Amino acid sequence: MSGLVARNLNMVPFVSVEDMMKLVLKTGTERFIQELAGYIRDDFGRWERFDKTPRVGSYGHEGVIELMPTSDGELYGFKYVNGHPKNTRDGRQTVTAFGVLADLGNGYPMLITEMTLLTALRTAATSALVASHLAPKGSHTMALIGNGAQSEFQALAFRSLLGIERLRLYDTDPAASEKCKANLAPLGFEIEIFRSGEEAVEGADIITTATADKRNATILTDNMVGPGVHINAVGGDCPGKTELHRDILLRSSIFTEFTPQTRIEGEIQQLDADYPVTEFWQVLAGTADGRRGERDITLFDSVGFAIEDFSSLRYVRDLVGPTGLYEELDMLADPDDPRDLFGMLQRAAARL
Amino acid sequence: MSGLVARNLNMVPFVSVEDMMKLVLKTGTERFIQELAGYIRDDFGRWERFDKTPRVGSYGHEGVIELMPTSDGELYGFKYVNGHPKNTRDGRQTVTAFGVLADLGNGYPMLITEMTLLTALRTAATSALVASHLAPKGSHTMALIGNGAQSEFQALAFRSLLGIERLRLYDTDPAASEKCKANLAPLGFEIEIFRSGEEAVEGADIITTATADKRNATILTDNMVGPGVHINAVGGDCPGKTELHRDILLRSSIFTEFTPQTRIEGEIQQLDADYPVTEFWQVLAGTADGRRGERDITLFDSVGFAIEDFSSLRYVRDLVGPTGLYEELDMLADPDDPRDLFGMLQRAAARL
Repeated sequence: MSGLVARNLNMVPFVSVEDMMKLVLKTGTERFIQELAGYIRDDFGRWERFDKTPRVGSYGHEGVIELMPTSDGELYGFKYVNGHPKNTRDGRQTVTAFGVLADLGNGYPMLITEMTLLTALRTAATSALVASHLAPKGSHTMALIGNGAQSEFQALAFRSLLGIERLRLYDTDPAASEKCKANLAPLGFEIEIFRSGEEAVEGADIITTATADKRNATILTDNMVGPGVHINAVGGDCPGKTELHRDILLRSSIFTEFTPQTRIEGEIQQLDADYPVTEFWQVLAGTADGRRGERDITLFDSVGFAIEDFSSLRYVRDLVGPTGLYEELDMLADPDDPRDLFGMLQRAAARL
Repeated sequence: MSGLVARNLNMVPFVSVEDMMKLVLKTGTERFIQELAGYIRDDFGRWERFDKTPRVGSYGHEGVIELMPTSDGELYGFKYVNGHPKNTRDGRQTVTAFGVLADLGNGYPMLITEMTLLTALRTAATSALVASHLAPKGSHTMALIGNGAQSEFQALAFRSLLGIERLRLYDTDPAASEKCKANLAPLGFEIEIFRSGEEAVEGADIITTATADKRNATILTDNMVGPGVHINAVGGDCPGKTELHRDILLRSSIFTEFTPQTRIEGEIQQLDADYPVTEFWQVLAGTADGRRGERDITLFDSVGFAIEDFSSLRYVRDLVGPTGLYEELDMLADPDDPRDLFGMLQRAAARL
C-alpha cells in the first residue's frame, strides 16, 4: 500500500510544513479533503478494532499540551497538539500540531509530519463526512459562524462532499469575514457576509460554528435554529468552552465521535452525563439511526478524535511516497550490533 | 539559561543521532553523564512540582510503544519509546526513543531529539546518582550482570560519580562480556569476566543487573547477595519482567523512582501492593532514610521515569545551543495572520 519506505532503518521520513503545503496543492485541496474523508470513513468503519485512549493533557496557566495516541493493532499513531488562546498576541498560532505514525510490530516510527495544516484539513473532512450522512438531502446553503483559520477548510470540505456552493458568513470581527470571503470567492463560492448570527443562519440548511473563544459562549440561541437543520459545531473543543445554547441540544439528535471525550470537551458538557447521544460510527455501521426525518435537527458535536489523526497519518504516508515531498531524519540509533550502542559511539569518535 | 533559540517561530531545533554522538563525544561521555546526573538531581529535588502522569502504552503482539509525558508547570517534555525484544532478529534496536521539550506557556515545541542514546545515558546517570547516596562508602568494585547495550554506560556513570574502577562481568552470552571488556578496557577500567553470576558478584560492593530477557528471570538468587551490598536493578522494566529472586527483595531496603509505576513494571511486581518502599526523592529531601547501616542491603528498583527524560531534554537544550549541533525543522505552520491558515496555503501556491 505505502510507497513510503526509508532507505535506512534509522531514517524517519519527515513532512515539513512546506512539503505539506506542496502536497496539498499538488493534490488539490478539495481532492485532498475528499480522499482524506475516505480514510476517516474506513477507520470509523472498523471502530471496534481501535485502542481508544482518552487524550493525555498537561495544563498550564495559558493553555494545554495534549498527546492523542491510538492504534489499530498494526499501526500506531499519535498527535502532539497545543491549545493556547492568547498565542495570537505574539504572532503564534493558538493551535499547532505534529504527529507520528509507527509500526506497532517493531515500534519504529514510519513518518513524522507537521499536523497544524493537516488537522485543519481532517477536522473539515470529518465535519463533511458526518454531514454527508446527517444533513438534509439537497442541502445547498451553509451558514458559517466564526470565520477564522478553520472556516475556509470547512467550506471546501462541504463543497467537495456535499456540493454546498452558497455560504452565509458571520464573525464578531468583520475583518475575519472579509478575509474568508477574499479567500473563497475566487474559488467560485456564492458568499454573503452578515452583521449578526441571526441573519446569517436564515434559510441555511447547514449551520457550522467554528469560533475560537475559550469560554462558554452562546453563538447560537434557541430561536435561531429551525426544524430540519444540520448543525456542525466545531469550535467547542475543550472543557469550559461551548458555542450553543443548551436548549438547542435538548431539541436535537446529537452525534459524537467518542462520547467519553465529548462529555468532557464538547457541547454536551452542558447536559447530564447520561444524556443519550449517538456515536457517528454506529450510523456508518447501521446499528443506530442517523437523521430521523425532515424536521429532525441533527447536531454533530465535534471535538476531534485521535482516530481522525490516525487516518490522516495513514493518508499522508500513502500519498507522499511517490512525490518525494519529505526529508529523511536521522532519528533512530542504528548500531551494527544492537547490543553495542556504546561501541557505535566510540567508533563515531574516530569518524566525526 | 538556554542558548538554544530558533531563528523563526516556526522552526524547531532537532538533534539527530549523529549530532547527539558529536555532542556526547565533544563533552566527554563521563562529564556528560555527571552533568546530566546534576540535572536529574535538581529535578528530583523539586519532585512535588511535577505533573506525574503514568506512561501511556499501546500494546501489540511483539511489544509496546509508550509515551512518557511530564511537566514542571513551565516546561513540558515527553518521550516516545518502544520495547520490542525480538527486534534484534532483523537488525533493529529493541528500544528506540525520541523526545520533545516544549514551552507549556505557549505550547510550542522547543527541541526534538533522538533519545535512544540519551536514554542509555540518563538511565546510567540515574543509577549512579542513586548509588552515590545509597551504596556503601568506599565502594570500589561493581559486578555487572548483563553486558548488553546499557552496560558500558553504567560503568562510566559509576566511575564518574562514585569512582568505581573495578568491574566483574557476567553475561549468559560470553561474546557480550568480551564486547563490553573490549569497549571499556582501553578506558582504564580493571575488568574480569566470569563464567557465572555467582562468581561475578563475589566481593562486589555494588551489583548492577541489566539483562534484556522479557520474562521473569532470576539473575540473582538469595544466596548470592551478602550484607551491605547495593543492588542496582536496571533490567526489569516492564510487566512480567523481573531479575531478582523475591527473597532478596524481602531482605532489602527498596528504593523506587515513582512507586505507582514501579509496582507495575519493577522488581516489586513480586511483592504485595502495599509492601513498604521509599521513593528516592524523599532521601534527597531528607524526609526518608537512605542506607541504615553497614549491613543494610539497599536495592534501587529502577524502571526509568519521565522526569529523568525531562531532565535530559533540559540538559541537551542547555548544552547544544552554542555547539550548533542541531538542524532546524520547519515543523510549525506560521501564517502571517494566525487566523489565515488557508491564505498561507493559497499564497504558497504562487511561490512553490
